[in-house]
Amino acid sequence: MSVMGKGRLEAFSDGVIAIIITIMVLEMKVPQGESVAVLRPLIPVFLSYVLSFLYVGIYWNNHHHMLHATTRVTGPILWANLHLLFWLSLFPFATGWMGQNYFGLSPTALYGFVLLMAGIAYFILQHAIIASQGPDSVLRKAIGSDWKGKLSPLLYLAGIFSSLFSSWTAQAIYVFVAVLWLIPDRRIEHALRQTPS
Amino acid sequence: MSVMGKGRLEAFSDGVIAIIITIMVLEMKVPQGESVAVLRPLIPVFLSYVLSFLYVGIYWNNHHHMLHATTRVTGPILWANLHLLFWLSLFPFATGWMGQNYFGLSPTALYGFVLLMAGIAYFILQHAIIASQGPDSVLRKAIGSDWKGKLSPLLYLAGIFSSLFSSWTAQAIYVFVAVLWLIPDRRIEHALRQTPS
Amino acid sequence: MSVMGKGRLEAFSDGVIAIIITIMVLEMKVPQGESVAVLRPLIPVFLSYVLSFLYVGIYWNNHHHMLHATTRVTGPILWANLHLLFWLSLFPFATGWMGQNYFGLSPTALYGFVLLMAGIAYFILQHAIIASQGPDSVLRKAIGSDWKGKLSPLLYLAGIFSSLFSSWTAQAIYVFVAVLWLIPDRRIEHALRQTPS
Amino acid sequence: MSVMGKGRLEAFSDGVIAIIITIMVLEMKVPQGESVAVLRPLIPVFLSYVLSFLYVGIYWNNHHHMLHATTRVTGPILWANLHLLFWLSLFPFATGWMGQNYFGLSPTALYGFVLLMAGIAYFILQHAIIASQGPDSVLRKAIGSDWKGKLSPLLYLAGIFSSLFSSWTAQAIYVFVAVLWLIPDRRIEHALRQTPS
Repeated sequence: MSVMGKGRLEAFSDGVIAIIITIMVLEMKVPQGESVAVLRPLIPVFLSYVLSFLYVGIYWNNHHHMLHATTRVTGPILWANLHLLFWLSLFPFATGWMGQNYFGLSPTALYGFVLLMAGIAYFILQHAIIASQGPDSVLRKAIGSDWKGKLSPLLYLAGIFSSLFSSWTAQAIYVFVAVLWLIPDRRIEHALRQTPS
Repeated sequence: MSVMGKGRLEAFSDGVIAIIITIMVLEMKVPQGESVAVLRPLIPVFLSYVLSFLYVGIYWNNHHHMLHATTRVTGPILWANLHLLFWLSLFPFATGWMGQNYFGLSPTALYGFVLLMAGIAYFILQHAIIASQGPDSVLRKAIGSDWKGKLSPLLYLAGIFSSLFSSWTAQAIYVFVAVLWLIPDRRIEHALRQTPS
Repeated sequence: MSVMGKGRLEAFSDGVIAIIITIMVLEMKVPQGESVAVLRPLIPVFLSYVLSFLYVGIYWNNHHHMLHATTRVTGPILWANLHLLFWLSLFPFATGWMGQNYFGLSPTALYGFVLLMAGIAYFILQHAIIASQGPDSVLRKAIGSDWKGKLSPLLYLAGIFSSLFSSWTAQAIYVFVAVLWLIPDRRIEHALRQTPS
Repeated sequence: MSVMGKGRLEAFSDGVIAIIITIMVLEMKVPQGESVAVLRPLIPVFLSYVLSFLYVGIYWNNHHHMLHATTRVTGPILWANLHLLFWLSLFPFATGWMGQNYFGLSPTALYGFVLLMAGIAYFILQHAIIASQGPDSVLRKAIGSDWKGKLSPLLYLAGIFSSLFSSWTAQAIYVFVAVLWLIPDRRIEHALRQTPS
């Protein structure tokens, strides 16, 4: 039995995610001077902001769908959710460090590490919800094989290791994973359509 | 069929817009010294803050009315909405750069570019909603000829080009577009009043 | 007829006010060094933060009660509300400048000016709501003579003028007004209790 | 009789807590340079961020459960809640100062002081709610002996005093209290399960 309304968990998560996605832009410091040239060092910062905006947007979107398929909020779900928010909260730092160092090796590896940990946290949250729903879990049916969720951590790991010699390979992998998730995922939508709401 | 409640899309958008409108003020750095004179360099920063506050307020207001005329949230609507929020999230940066450089040419052009992209993103979102509503779209009827929505991007373009030789002409155009939108727009309100809610 | 739900206006205002009250604390910069002595210059910053926290808390509280007595949201109410949020958004700046200059004369006057403008904006919003409610306005009955609302701007003005020669007199006045509002105001609560909800 | 919906108090508190938990990460400044070595000075900042994230998460969680057992919001509850939010809003400052000074003595003591004051504020809020509920208070039954709530302030005090000679002892105490609260607390959940909702 849950004593927490799903609504407040959604509202709090939305609040934190909305703040994360917005304060990331503060790492793009307003430059001194008014010539177009002063914007040039900001290009990598901007590009890493775009990538992180996409990732946080994808997390918000998936989080939303996942909670839609959730009926009750238990203690483990609540803490698994805070754990996910914790790793998401490190996006502004990891994004800023990577952007301000032109996608250097260590920052690129750290960025991949934060992506990896957020992916794992999402996986844990998903399984906490499934566990709470018992054998007839709507979410378990909805995610099916969950190949994206299982493949992504492996790709993040590949990104982290490749960042040791080529940060561009790592970037390409991170962008590839984002695109993978951007392609509409009709699984949960489909499963829910079957269910009378 | 949508699996996303309109409420959560509204709440998330409200959260992001509320944060954008509030962190813009952080670009107005607290000055060193306590004489009134130290406030003088902040006047352009303040004026650009006022202009951006108006623009973000207008976007929030229009976004609200548009979603009011929306019945279901589809994948394309969701991403078109995030796309709009992305360009709005660049307002603090563009505002800060313009204000700190006394409305210099390049910052004024960049500000116009962000206005333009936000306007285009709003247009795309509007059409994603209309497309989801089919031939009897309430929103399509509500926006009518949408002359403001079509004229604004042209005016932003005019602002960007005029900023190449006179940033004050560009500013005047940006202020003019804001005033255009501030004048109450009874179209959507009127169409909705006809509809039993 | 209003096309805006009161809920979304409340949610947006709550969001902005929550952000304002929280980012004010960012003006209290983490000091260099670990001795207790480095905290000393922060004492005025802390005190001005406490005062502003109280003011924003009072505004949030009163805003909440006022909207509770509001049934529909019109265009003028919406813009009067954004106007109030605009002046509230200047609290972090005014608070930071006053605190970092040990309650110097100009910063104290500016702080009073922001208080004054927020007070006037609140007054305008209140009257926009009353106007929308017509002759049987619940809010008009609820506020009664509104002596606090009418006295406060005069006291802020007194504070601004006294700050020209004694910033401590001005501070005392600002604190006095805050205390005045902190004393429970049973007017609206009372009027609402009469009304079946 | 209350004139404030519980929903808006929850929403505002969620907003403030979401912002606090997220802006704390801004104290972890993006370092200059791209070698792994530049991250080393950030380790204590990161650790203190983790601890504070846990504490704020615990407060959010407990606050949520407490309000769940609350039926009406009175003036004293509202102000006791703002008082709690005030002390929570000092977490980013206290966390940043402690982390940037490698858990030095004074910063560790100040951190404990903020923990203590937040604990006391929580206690006051709890009793304001119980007082408003009268002799049959659901919350009073739910919290039972409230041994955690009574023990925590004593442990914070012990932490503050021990920080005068060993900041590591103080840290151990702060971590211990957090762990104490992390252990699921079935009291309120249990009491609520008895009540038809």
